[in-house]
Amino acid sequence: MRFVSRTSSGGVSEQLFTLDEIPGVLWMPEGACGTRPLILMGHGGGQHKKAPGILAGAHRFAAEGGFAVAAIDVPHHGERPRGEEFDRLATEYRARTTAGEDTAELDTAMYTLVVGQTVAEWQAVLTAVQQLDHIGGGPVGYWGVSLGCALGIPLVAAEPRVRAAVLGLQGSPVLAGAAAQITVPVRFLVQWDDELMPRAQSLALFDAIGSTEKTLHANPGGHGDLPRFETDDSLHFFARRLV
Amino acid sequence: MRFVSRTSSGGVSEQLFTLDEIPGVLWMPEGACGTRPLILMGHGGGQHKKAPGILAGAHRFAAEGGFAVAAIDVPHHGERPRGEEFDRLATEYRARTTAGEDTAELDTAMYTLVVGQTVAEWQAVLTAVQQLDHIGGGPVGYWGVSLGCALGIPLVAAEPRVRAAVLGLQGSPVLAGAAAQITVPVRFLVQWDDELMPRAQSLALFDAIGSTEKTLHANPGGHGDLPRFETDDSLHFFARRLV
Repeated sequence: MRFVSRTSSGGVSEQLFTLDEIPGVLWMPEGACGTRPLILMGHGGGQHKKAPGILAGAHRFAAEGGFAVAAIDVPHHGERPRGEEFDRLATEYRARTTAGEDTAELDTAMYTLVVGQTVAEWQAVLTAVQQLDHIGGGPVGYWGVSLGCALGIPLVAAEPRVRAAVLGLQGSPVLAGAAAQITVPVRFLVQWDDELMPRAQSLALFDAIGSTEKTLHANPGGHGDLPRFETDDSLHFFARRLV
Repeated sequence: MRFVSRTSSGGVSEQLFTLDEIPGVLWMPEGACGTRPLILMGHGGGQHKKAPGILAGAHRFAAEGGFAVAAIDVPHHGERPRGEEFDRLATEYRARTTAGEDTAELDTAMYTLVVGQTVAEWQAVLTAVQQLDHIGGGPVGYWGVSLGCALGIPLVAAEPRVRAAVLGLQGSPVLAGAAAQITVPVRFLVQWDDELMPRAQSLALFDAIGSTEKTLHANPGGHGDLPRFETDDSLHFFARRLV
């Protein structure tokens, strides 16, 4: 794990790093020492490790919750090289989005293309980050919606260090099998008027999650309209579960 | 408004009162003075103003949130006289519940029997309670599920003093019209495996609520299995909205 840069704003430090070919970022409360819980944040399709939604959430989790927060560019995103097949899917995705068409099938295709790689990458990043003195082997949460949920579900299912997850904006039926293997507490976010994910599929994916404690939070609005107060809720949720 | 008794436990005072023929109870943080936000709590069918769910919620709202909390016995419940028609409906309700049958139609019938009276009663109680020095005319919230939601929806729709509401465990189609007139922030609680309310009807009632800010919280389990952490959430919700 190689740290590339370090900046700071609003009481939160931000360190860019690379681990093998994976570019990542680590946020911490300024001046933090001692072990602390860690939140992994998975970005959405077409986004990257410092997309506005990730950055805003990470700053609040670090500043208000005292968490360490890590994000990475998933394959074909951010600073990472694109592949031909991914480019084709991304072009079709943009066209369907513009036309107001359902993209659930394309999410499935994108997911299939990268999922095997991302679970292993997240696990490697998690191991490396937890070796840092000021983080250590405390409890871990995962936050990811849309593509971040599609890639998060198999990670949360496979990785026992992850003890709570905020997921959602996702309803791809291909995820049902992995969702059924999740046993940790889950918040599942649904946008009631999501133009990209059919409501019935989102509800079916919530249904499929294996956890005894799982709560669906649905709010009016489209795929990009997740209300800000759900970040308050995620913060409370992680604060109660990652202790 | 006539106070009948006063007791105290866990830092919360409890005063029984009557207003005309309405028996009620008022909880306050022990030793409270000065104005404070008020939460009205509506009990479920067959329950009463001091049913365990009401009592537990009221104690937390008063002790942890500093709220005043009022509950009343709605017509045909608690200390109030039964009517013949209500008795017939209640008997049928118990039979259907025992048989695991859907009770949505009976909820509608019970609702129709009492709704005209309860809205006016809640309004009279609200006016009387807000004249007390240690409560005053601060912001008001309503919390009620099941029958407490059925009777709460027309109250919240009609009463501008109510500024936020936690509702749910209810899907009677007869409520859609009143629900559409609600404009204040709402939490709507759904039990995903509710044996008394068909899921599709509950989702449709959430859909019908007119508020811009409304959030559905769905948890696994039956009608009586509302998880305790939803009380934490209601507390945070009222604390942010009733200021």
